[in-house]
Order: sequence, then structure tokens, then C-alpha cells
Amino acid sequence: MSAAAGGPAGPATVDLNADLGESFGRWVLGDDEALLPLVSSANVACGFHAGDPLTLRRTCEGAAAHGVAVGAQVGYRDLAGFGRRFVDVDPDDLAADVLYQLGALDGLARAAGTRVTYLKPHGALYHAAARDDGQAGAVVAAVVAYDRSLPVLGLPGSRLLALAADAGLTAVPEAFADRAYTPDGGLVDRRSPGAVLHDADEVAARVVRLATTGEVEAVDGSVVAVRAASVCVHGDSPGAVAMAGAVRTALADAGVAVAAFAPPPARA
Amino acid sequence: MSAAAGGPAGPATVDLNADLGESFGRWVLGDDEALLPLVSSANVACGFHAGDPLTLRRTCEGAAAHGVAVGAQVGYRDLAGFGRRFVDVDPDDLAADVLYQLGALDGLARAAGTRVTYLKPHGALYHAAARDDGQAGAVVAAVVAYDRSLPVLGLPGSRLLALAADAGLTAVPEAFADRAYTPDGGLVDRRSPGAVLHDADEVAARVVRLATTGEVEAVDGSVVAVRAASVCVHGDSPGAVAMAGAVRTALADAGVAVAAFAPPPARA
Amino acid sequence: MSAAAGGPAGPATVDLNADLGESFGRWVLGDDEALLPLVSSANVACGFHAGDPLTLRRTCEGAAAHGVAVGAQVGYRDLAGFGRRFVDVDPDDLAADVLYQLGALDGLARAAGTRVTYLKPHGALYHAAARDDGQAGAVVAAVVAYDRSLPVLGLPGSRLLALAADAGLTAVPEAFADRAYTPDGGLVDRRSPGAVLHDADEVAARVVRLATTGEVEAVDGSVVAVRAASVCVHGDSPGAVAMAGAVRTALADAGVAVAAFAPPPARA
Amino acid sequence: MSAAAGGPAGPATVDLNADLGESFGRWVLGDDEALLPLVSSANVACGFHAGDPLTLRRTCEGAAAHGVAVGAQVGYRDLAGFGRRFVDVDPDDLAADVLYQLGALDGLARAAGTRVTYLKPHGALYHAAARDDGQAGAVVAAVVAYDRSLPVLGLPGSRLLALAADAGLTAVPEAFADRAYTPDGGLVDRRSPGAVLHDADEVAARVVRLATTGEVEAVDGSVVAVRAASVCVHGDSPGAVAMAGAVRTALADAGVAVAAFAPPPARA
Repeated sequence: MSAAAGGPAGPATVDLNADLGESFGRWVLGDDEALLPLVSSANVACGFHAGDPLTLRRTCEGAAAHGVAVGAQVGYRDLAGFGRRFVDVDPDDLAADVLYQLGALDGLARAAGTRVTYLKPHGALYHAAARDDGQAGAVVAAVVAYDRSLPVLGLPGSRLLALAADAGLTAVPEAFADRAYTPDGGLVDRRSPGAVLHDADEVAARVVRLATTGEVEAVDGSVVAVRAASVCVHGDSPGAVAMAGAVRTALADAGVAVAAFAPPPARA
Repeated sequence: MSAAAGGPAGPATVDLNADLGESFGRWVLGDDEALLPLVSSANVACGFHAGDPLTLRRTCEGAAAHGVAVGAQVGYRDLAGFGRRFVDVDPDDLAADVLYQLGALDGLARAAGTRVTYLKPHGALYHAAARDDGQAGAVVAAVVAYDRSLPVLGLPGSRLLALAADAGLTAVPEAFADRAYTPDGGLVDRRSPGAVLHDADEVAARVVRLATTGEVEAVDGSVVAVRAASVCVHGDSPGAVAMAGAVRTALADAGVAVAAFAPPPARA
Repeated sequence: MSAAAGGPAGPATVDLNADLGESFGRWVLGDDEALLPLVSSANVACGFHAGDPLTLRRTCEGAAAHGVAVGAQVGYRDLAGFGRRFVDVDPDDLAADVLYQLGALDGLARAAGTRVTYLKPHGALYHAAARDDGQAGAVVAAVVAYDRSLPVLGLPGSRLLALAADAGLTAVPEAFADRAYTPDGGLVDRRSPGAVLHDADEVAARVVRLATTGEVEAVDGSVVAVRAASVCVHGDSPGAVAMAGAVRTALADAGVAVAAFAPPPARA
Repeated sequence: MSAAAGGPAGPATVDLNADLGESFGRWVLGDDEALLPLVSSANVACGFHAGDPLTLRRTCEGAAAHGVAVGAQVGYRDLAGFGRRFVDVDPDDLAADVLYQLGALDGLARAAGTRVTYLKPHGALYHAAARDDGQAGAVVAAVVAYDRSLPVLGLPGSRLLALAADAGLTAVPEAFADRAYTPDGGLVDRRSPGAVLHDADEVAARVVRLATTGEVEAVDGSVVAVRAASVCVHGDSPGAVAMAGAVRTALADAGVAVAAFAPPPARA
């Protein structure tokens, strides 16, 4: 977000990212068609926690058609748990698992006329890589081995982003559209009351404020600066898609451009 | 094989291909370390019928170290059946499955300092793509979408090679070191007596003859011309590795060079 | 159906069967809660084509609470294809696969206070076992090995039912509520126009007629006798659940009792 | 072990348990045929960490033929990690996963003319259930729901055995033939030098002493009492099978009977 980042004067911009490609065979999840026009970055599943190859290919084709960036949302090999359960994978195995998923999605993206332009871990791997150097380091090592130009999207202050930066990768912190913040800029624990915001208009207004000023109002009413180059929105329920639509509309009304932090390649 | 192919005068060359990377997690299969010095092309599993990502990465590293070409040995999604059971996959799904595997292995190959330079279907997919246009077409479509410069290795006279050639791909027929041939150049049915040759010296002599003259002796004693740019050897048992070694030694003694038909990229 | 079967005079009864337990982890499919009050027999997935263990346990608990019979809906090991793709499984493997699934579901049923009281193959296995002796024989052999008192539910005229009867098992033919019939009592090919009926009232009336007279009107207007001890209804869409409800209501209005052909054990 | 347990005078007996049925499809692991004559209890994999259904059926048949007890070696759903990686499974899911595996193996055992007569968790689940009440409680709840007469075999002093006993199950502690003990009866950490014993004669002598006196010599030379109703031996390498054979021979020489703590049903 140029305003938040204190960049040169000009219209504010923000990236909106959401999870896509999470169907698997007969099982449909999320509404990729509804979400693709609303976001600038698609965190596309890579087959280990969700996403059969044909679903992933079509999701990449949709992203290419909408000019949306494709990110590899790598996860633990755990379809039954949707990648939401920590699996104590040895870092050498994890690095290879991440490389495998990254290459697989990039191949499908190429066939769809685009490319993977960033990586974001999914679910339990997102959280493990936020706090554990072994898990974070394996993810970083895979990106380094695959393509050093790929940014890593993750939790602000996470070990993942720290190790990514140490390795010379572009580390991109994200904010959360529908989460309450603590006065020090952290997230209110999901189990606390009020941790998740449900009012679409309120969420939309918060994203506009974040995109234009780099600030959010914390749970205690104080104002906190949030470093974030991307804002995560959800899309796995009709209400979530409606909320993403409200965010998008509010940003347009406020004159904030929505643009990927890692843009897809120009189409041939 | 330059002699067989009627190319310009010069020393005969032949490609030897074998299946590698077929372990899975705790389960070890084959002896990649023993085979890598013997072959010029490694058909590396891609995770759907065999091959966990770390195994595949190490196999690619070994191939890179030995200057051996890495081929993507794509298969049906069937670990329990090792890809040897026909699965009636819809061609759209199959094309995406092949792309997924191709990209995944190529990602691991890149991380190992090499690249996937050809594709060969495995097991039941090999046989289905030999006779069925739907299955063959899906494999070809995946290669076309991924990289038109990748050759496809398969059964001489197969629908796979015909459709690959029609699509402008390089179609590479293979011969089998340890299989008996019919007088018309086909393979003796595996269930017939004498279909599989077990004597290492005899097999080695046949490969030398094939490499230098393009001929094999059929089961009836007649001599048959076999169009083949690569010879498949096995490696999933100690006896098979010994046979591959005998073939390699006999080729060296006969002054036949062993070289990949789709060489790996030069190492940085 | 006592009337159809020409049994002793008395109120007609019919069994309604539907597929349940087809969710998998995060992915929800069907509406088990809505269907359970409508059917007398639940074809419960067994984990190979659908159904994580906790889903299956809860489905069994629901069936037990509603007095609905639990049938083991065994399938090919193919989550990605939802068991709808033929897999050329060796009969020895298939028999073991069926036993594994049967025992697994029966264990969950026991924990839920009920038992598996019949078996019905799912998807591609249903169709393969209808025409192929190898596949059908493997399913029958598994039931024989597990519990000879378990009936097998399948397609009228199928090899499965023939081999089941030959082996001394109870072979139960089913009819299809929403499918058009040919004049000789077969099903109109699914790809033909009019093969699937969509009008809930028409479907309900047909099931009532079938339950009370053993007859259906074929596509050409002729009346055909259909041997069926159970009628299959669908439940994997809101419209399907509504249709099942219409069938149930029409049966009640016509005084036809709905009862399992293989009743669950009395609850302790 | 009657001597160790202070039972009535009479010949000492001991149970020997080992892991079996750990092959998967094309991949062979262990030597079930060599082990079955040596042990009295077979911890048979249940398909989640290893063991395709046909392998499991054959292992059960072999156990039945040798009069060996079949135990359900339940594990995490993790073929790629062979069940050796902790997976943070919710207890409700884990209880259902254990029930599913237990029922599946029991079905195969029934078809083989025997039954599952005890349960032992595998790998990471063994260790997690030793220290974590959530994981241990889920395993116990599954056994309670399935069959309260099934003993649970596990680590002495583990939460698993404590919760099993609390629930009224038979909790069976095991000893390890090839592991060094601390002076307080615990195991020397596997990463410490000398933690694993490799001399077959020494191991055999220790098992005889344990079986006849209930004592082992700890690493510091002190003698420690070990409460154990079963001794675990390994079989996943040729050396391991030879060691198990040495143990069996030494027990016979010492007049110690080898007998299952949970005997299989008498054969029909």
C-alpha cells in the first residue's frame, strides 16, 4: 500500500488476497468464480491439503483471465485434515514437499498462460512457520531453491518472514480484513470474543482506512500502525464473498486501487 | 542410435533408460545409486504411483551428478496399485494430472540443478496410452501445454507416439533389453514362455546388436529391424541391476557410446 | 415390497435407500440430517471413495437414532474420483479392500449402537460388478468371508446379484425412483433424453405405484413389472432431498409403510 | 510373565510382540513369514500408516495358522511418514480413526479365522498417547466403544495405560528386548550412546532374565524390576529377525514358554 508504506504521493493501492482452488474432485468448496473479480491475488491450493489438478488448472485459468496473481498456497500432506493439523514433518522432507507443490502449481499456471508469482503457506503450516525456525526455514529453503524472485506472504512478525528476509527473499506481511487487533498490532486470539468481525460495512471501512493511512483501530479504541502489503479476505461461504464484495466496493468509492503486490506476467 | 537411424557415419550410440525414484517414504524400492552410473536416462516417478518428494529430489540430484537425463514418469494416482492398474480417468482430469506431475518433478529437478527433458508414462498409463486415443491424447495435450520441446518416450507403434508426432512433439520409440520379439517387430506377450530373457550375457549381446545394426533376432530365429532411439533396462532387483551392468560393459567393449536422447542441460 | 412380491395380503411396504456419509473432512456433501428421517436404509460410504471416520461415525449414530438400516457402500480406493472411475483392481485385492471397508464401517456402526446389515457397491464398482464376474465375485467373496447373513443390494439382472445368490447370499434388486425404464424393465441409458425424471410429484406417484403394484410405466407407455425390494432415492442436492420428501409423503398418503429390507438390530 | 507377575508357581511364560503387516502394495517391508514362528503376538498395521488390505489379510491368515495373537497397530493417517510423525489430530477425529482401523483389521482377521485380541498404537501415536491425555483418551475411548474386553498394550508408566486402566480396560505394559534401561526402570534416550543393544546373545540373555525374574540390568549396572507382560522385538531387517530368533531359542533353552497375553480364539 503506497500510502501506508510512505511512498511517493499518488493514489493509494492495496492488494487483496484470498484462498482459492480448494475444491477436491466431487467436493466443491468456496466460490472461485465470485471471488476472482474481487481480489488481486489468489492463494491457490497445491494439492496436498486441497485442490485436485483439474480444479487447480481451472482456477489458474480464471486468475489469468482476471489478471489476478497466482500464489502457491502450500500445505501439509493432509487431505483429511484440510492442512489444518500440524504434522511434525522433518525439514528436509518439508522443503521437498514445498518444492513439489510449487512446481506442480507453476506447471498448471504456465499451461493457463500465467505463472506462480508468490508463495503463502496454508493452515497449520502457516502457523507453524510463524513460530518455528525448522518449519519456516524449510519453506524458505524451498523458495530459494526454486526461484529467489518469488515473494513470501505471511504473518507480520513471523519467523517465516524473518528467515525469508535473511535469505534475501521479498517478505510480504499481510493484514486481516475481519480480525480484531491488539494495541500492539497483533491479532486478538481467535477464541476471544470479538476476535472476528462480522459486519461487512465495518470491515470494509477498516480496510479502506488501512489502505489509505496504514492504521487500524485496536480493540481498546487506540490507533495502531499495521505494516501490511496485502489484506487477506475470506471466500469460503456466501457471507464471506459478500464481505469481500463490500470491501472491494468501498475501496473503489475511496479511490483506492486494488493491485497485486506480485503481478502476474503480461499475457501473450 | 545413430547406426540404427542411418545417421552420418561415426561411432554408434545408444540411450539406456530405467525407472528410478520409486521409493515412497519408509519403503525402499530399486537401487538408484547402483543404476545411475549405468543409464543415460532416468524415468523418475512423479509421486502419483511412487516417489515421495524427498526421494524424487535426491534422485534428481543423483541424475544431475551423473549427467543422466531426467524424464517425468507420470502415472495414475494410485499408490496402492503402484500405477499398474488401469484407472478410467476422464481425459480432462488426466491432462491436468500429467501437468501437475510434470511441473512437480521439473521443480525438483530445477532445485537439483537439472531439468525434466522428456516424458514417459508409467505402468497402466503406458499401456492405456498405447492403445486408447483418449488417454494418449490427454498425455500429449499436457506436454503441449507445458513445453513443446519435451520428447515423449513410448512403445513403438503406439497411439501415444502417433498422437505426439501429430501434435508436433518429438516421439521417441523404445526397445526392451530383456524382452523377446515377434517376427513383425512386436513384443512376445509377457505371459508366453520365453517372453522375458533372463541371461545377462545374452541380453547384453542383443543390446549391442540392436545399437550397432538396428536389428534383433526374433523368437523364430528371423532377424527383425527395430526402430528404437532408447533401450529400456530394469533395475528393481539385484539381478536387474547386474543385467544393466552387463549391458553397459558390453556396449563399452563394442565401442558403443551411451548417451541420452534428450540430454540434460549443462551444469552451471 | 410385499404387494409386488405377491406376499400375503396386508399393507404394502417399501424400502427407500439413499447414499449418506459422503462428506470428507472439510468438504461437506449431501444433507444427512434431512435424509435420515426420509429413508429406511442408508448406504453409508466406507472411506475409500468418500467418508472420513468421524463423518461415518456420526452418520451411523444418526441412522441408529432414526431406526434406519446401515449398509456398507463399498467403493474403489479413489477419493479424487469419488469412486466413479473404474479401477482395474485384481479380484484378490478387491475382496480384501471390500472386507477392510466392511469391517471398518461395522466397527463404527457398533460404536453407534447399530450394525451394518447389508452391502451395496458404489459408483464404478456398482457398474463393474453388474457386468464383470471378476469384480462381482470379489465383492461376493468378501461378504461370504465376513458374514453370510448380510444381503447384497444391487442392479436387477446384474452379475453381482446372480453370483451373490449362487453363493447363498440374499440378493436384493433395487429400483430407481427417478429413472425411466425401457419396455423390458431395464433402465433408459442415462445419456438419452428423458432418462432422468425431475418432477417430484411424478416420481412420487411412480414409487407409490411400484410399491403397491410392482409396476412402472415404461418410456413407451407400456406397463412393465419391476422386481425390486428397495427403491433408490438421491440426496446430494436440495432438489433431491425435496424429491425424497415428496416420495415419503406420497407413500404415507397411500398407506404404504416404509421399512428396511434388512432392519437394524433392536437398540439396547 | 507369570514369574515376574508373582503368579502361582509354575513354568515362566513370556509374550513376544513384533510389528507385522507393514508392506504396502508393491513395497515390501519386514519378513512376516520369518517372524510369525518366533512371536506370540503380532502388532498388525491397520492401513493408515502401512498395510494394504490384502497384505493385512494374509498377515492375519499367517497369524491364525501359527496361533499368534493379532493386535491392531493403529496409527496416524500418514502413509508418507509411516505414522512416525506426530499429527495434531482432534480427539474426536482420532477416536473415530482408531475405531475405523480397529474394525477394518478385525474384519480381515475374522475372514482369516481369528480376531483382533488387543490394540497397540504405532509410532508417533504410541509416543503421543504416552504423554498426552487428549491423544491417549481418544485411543481409550475407541477401545471402550468397540470392545471393552480388548487389552491395550503400551509403554509402562504411560498416560495411555493409566487412562486405559481408569476406563476399566486391561492395560498391558511392555518391555523392549533391545533397549537399555535407566536405573529407575525407564528407557535410555534413543539418541544416547548404548541406548540400543545390537548383540543378539546379550539381548536374548536379557529377555530370559526378564521373563524368569522380572529384572533387567540397567546401564549403570544396577538391577531394576521391570513390570512387563510382553516383550517387544523387531523384525524389519534381516538382523532383527535373527535377533528375534536368538531370543526365541534362548527362551526355549531356559524352559520359558512363549504365549500370547491375549490369546487368539480357538480355531473352528
